Amino acid sequence: MPYQPTNVVSEDELESIHDASMQILEEIGMDFLEPEARDLLIKAGATVEPGSERVRFDREMITEIIKTAPSEFTLHSRNPEHNLRIGGTWTAFGSVASAPNVLDLDRGRRIGNHLDYQNLLKLSQMLNSVHFLAGYPVEPIDLHASIRHLDATYDALTLTDKPFHAYSLGRQRNIDCLEMVRIGRGVDDATLEREPSIFTVINSSSPLRLDTPMLQGILEYSARNQVIVLTPFTLAGAMAPVTLAGALAQQNAEALAGIALTQLVRPGSPVVYGGFTSNVDMQSGAPAFGTPEYMRTAMVGGQLARRYKVPYRSSNVCAANALDAQAAYESVFSLWGAIMGGVNLLMHGAGWMEGGLHASYEKMILDADLLHMVSAFLEPPVVDESTLALDAIRDVGPGGHFFGTQHTQDRFRTAFYKPMISDWRNYESWEEGGSPQAPAKANSIWKEMLAAYEPPPIDSAIDAELRDFVARRHAEGGVPTDF
Amino acid sequence: MPYQPTNVVSEDELESIHDASMQILEEIGMDFLEPEARDLLIKAGATVEPGSERVRFDREMITEIIKTAPSEFTLHSRNPEHNLRIGGTWTAFGSVASAPNVLDLDRGRRIGNHLDYQNLLKLSQMLNSVHFLAGYPVEPIDLHASIRHLDATYDALTLTDKPFHAYSLGRQRNIDCLEMVRIGRGVDDATLEREPSIFTVINSSSPLRLDTPMLQGILEYSARNQVIVLTPFTLAGAMAPVTLAGALAQQNAEALAGIALTQLVRPGSPVVYGGFTSNVDMQSGAPAFGTPEYMRTAMVGGQLARRYKVPYRSSNVCAANALDAQAAYESVFSLWGAIMGGVNLLMHGAGWMEGGLHASYEKMILDADLLHMVSAFLEPPVVDESTLALDAIRDVGPGGHFFGTQHTQDRFRTAFYKPMISDWRNYESWEEGGSPQAPAKANSIWKEMLAAYEPPPIDSAIDAELRDFVARRHAEGGVPTDF
Repeated sequence: MPYQPTNVVSEDELESIHDASMQILEEIGMDFLEPEARDLLIKAGATVEPGSERVRFDREMITEIIKTAPSEFTLHSRNPEHNLRIGGTWTAFGSVASAPNVLDLDRGRRIGNHLDYQNLLKLSQMLNSVHFLAGYPVEPIDLHASIRHLDATYDALTLTDKPFHAYSLGRQRNIDCLEMVRIGRGVDDATLEREPSIFTVINSSSPLRLDTPMLQGILEYSARNQVIVLTPFTLAGAMAPVTLAGALAQQNAEALAGIALTQLVRPGSPVVYGGFTSNVDMQSGAPAFGTPEYMRTAMVGGQLARRYKVPYRSSNVCAANALDAQAAYESVFSLWGAIMGGVNLLMHGAGWMEGGLHASYEKMILDADLLHMVSAFLEPPVVDESTLALDAIRDVGPGGHFFGTQHTQDRFRTAFYKPMISDWRNYESWEEGGSPQAPAKANSIWKEMLAAYEPPPIDSAIDAELRDFVARRHAEGGVPTDF
Repeated sequence: MPYQPTNVVSEDELESIHDASMQILEEIGMDFLEPEARDLLIKAGATVEPGSERVRFDREMITEIIKTAPSEFTLHSRNPEHNLRIGGTWTAFGSVASAPNVLDLDRGRRIGNHLDYQNLLKLSQMLNSVHFLAGYPVEPIDLHASIRHLDATYDALTLTDKPFHAYSLGRQRNIDCLEMVRIGRGVDDATLEREPSIFTVINSSSPLRLDTPMLQGILEYSARNQVIVLTPFTLAGAMAPVTLAGALAQQNAEALAGIALTQLVRPGSPVVYGGFTSNVDMQSGAPAFGTPEYMRTAMVGGQLARRYKVPYRSSNVCAANALDAQAAYESVFSLWGAIMGGVNLLMHGAGWMEGGLHASYEKMILDADLLHMVSAFLEPPVVDESTLALDAIRDVGPGGHFFGTQHTQDRFRTAFYKPMISDWRNYESWEEGGSPQAPAKANSIWKEMLAAYEPPPIDSAIDAELRDFVARRHAEGGVPTDF
């Protein structure tokens, strides 16, 4: 991010939001459902009402504890070329994650399944503007819940070699995923702890509650120095106040409480401030995304994260059911909010539709193109003697044309970003070509990509060890699914 | 514009672009095809090669001359409620302008004509986020060129009461339009000269040439203290260098030369710095819009305009043939570039398609919605005791819900922008409703709006005077069309 992020509220207003969130933590408090987490907080000076899960924090205490959170860290991958620097002025883009349904133009909308899961992993691997897997692009519902994390993680580690996410769904799954990542990277436990290699999104159950599986995720992943992305799900008008300032104050209280816990578990462990504040349609209660409300809260979220000097997470989201103009404008407005908000970790970058209820093959291609355009936008034009082109302007002179000049010929192949989707033919040629719209182009691209897909190389001994691990854990029955 | 515009190049780089443009004006010069303009420039110290149209400027001279250009002014309308402040931190949105063709979903694409011209004026009048008419939304080809400006201006003055544009197509048309605006506003000549009431876009014929009708526009409109929007049409790789820095240096040279002429004609007359630098598809030569190149040049254009303390013009443009995802993402990327570039006068805000080759009824509605969302984004959230909502958060507490609270009930009607186009129904309801996409929604909206259209009130004496003027000028044969 070479540009100054956009500040939507003044320094004073930012302090007012901070103050309100501190008051929330001091006076109202937050429910931590896991006793072990409460014990850690009590030891650090928080107070817990006897017989309750309500934790109250002193503002000096919170401020002091979160100071150890790093402002920048590296997220490692089994292919070091895909390691990502998270924080500072770095921006990383992830795939869609966690959609229960999947859609493509040929087969329509259907429940998430293993084949589509694998296909979307393959596309994520091939798309250069997808830097990490943000989670399961679609939920592989046909894998039994007891062993889903094993098979899904095996796929993520073999069909791709980019950094990825593990869901925090109970202690044993967390242990399994960590072990598989360690095997996949071919490193020992000490190296894994030194080099964060997995991230997990921890959502608070807004308002003001952190549930047991989420708290276990912090306790286990932070203890191993892995990455926590603490994201309150604060929809203004539903789980948060209808006023954006109030929703942001609540978001900030929840985020800081969770971030504080990561630092109590292990000072210096990597953690990301997540912003996901949007609004709901006040008629139906449906969540809305890519709205003017979303843009502003995404930007204020970035201001808050910078205030605490921690990396910032935002998302590329939309509420559209079809890949039409709405899907595109909501996504680009989201990107505008996220990018100019100074996002470091962009979740759901490619493929998210319908408020997260389906992942789309075509949207994944279209979004990858949008992300590439954003990357090109984030390269300031080079200003030097050669690019100022005085000689070319002199040679061409008034009334001339630059098309055939040497200055143009030397540069035209790489001068401009060449999009995958945009159809720039003139109207007549386009009409003769069947008047194709963007989704049809995206449809043909993902098919070509899947046909051309080749898995990234993996050491056969590592692959065998991963297979053995998965087979053993299958044989042991995976994990209990009655949580 | 309550936020800090985005600076894409550093102060030093901006100075390099400025320096290069000064070198262009000093060493290469620019062709001014109109002798009267050359005479004015010579008198001010410019040098003209004997027997040529080539004018060279000294950089101190240019810098000194443009100092009198105002940084902010009011563009008056016959309805004072629609007067616009242009410059400073004000942002005004205009309709599409100058499309030769028109399209709607029912009737397809066709050549511009009077009926569609009137319809698009009516929609522009009704859409609150269209603040001014940027020109003929579509060219009314079926009005004979000799009297087109008369009938078209009469329509603009009676079907709407928003500020508008007149084309500079020769001395007599300029005189006619000025007189009609004077009559429409019901003011005398002196008032018209004190209160800028019309604007005209002056395009340089890039590279480095200003043609006679354009120069006459400056000579005549600036003399009457009307608004010049000086816009070089610098497509990188075609009429300007393939490198963005070079295209911007050339844009800047052309813009400043034209701006200087306005100030020589009448020091203090209102003028706007126009940026329209984009790139071409290097395969076909087709112009591209809403690209990463467009975004960055739009932002650097704003930096340059601010450097010279003059208002800045940019545009909402796309190259798409259909109102699909491409049309939407190119438009929102354009808006991102323009808005974060600090645009004051946004041309082609609503209805532009196909690189300007057709105006679209449906796109006009969709764009108006985008512009409204941008306006909502440009309102920073209020941060005060009431919006920070501590009491509501306390009342709801952990695990509760804000939907039914008094704090929400008091505010939910106006809390969020309610878009015209976005369909936020859940997938099942949307599918039952026929799976409508954005263009269908836009189609039904413009029909409702046209059905509900009522002309803005006009004093019957003024209307009669306008009709008399048009009838007299018709009888006189309008203007010669052999220019």
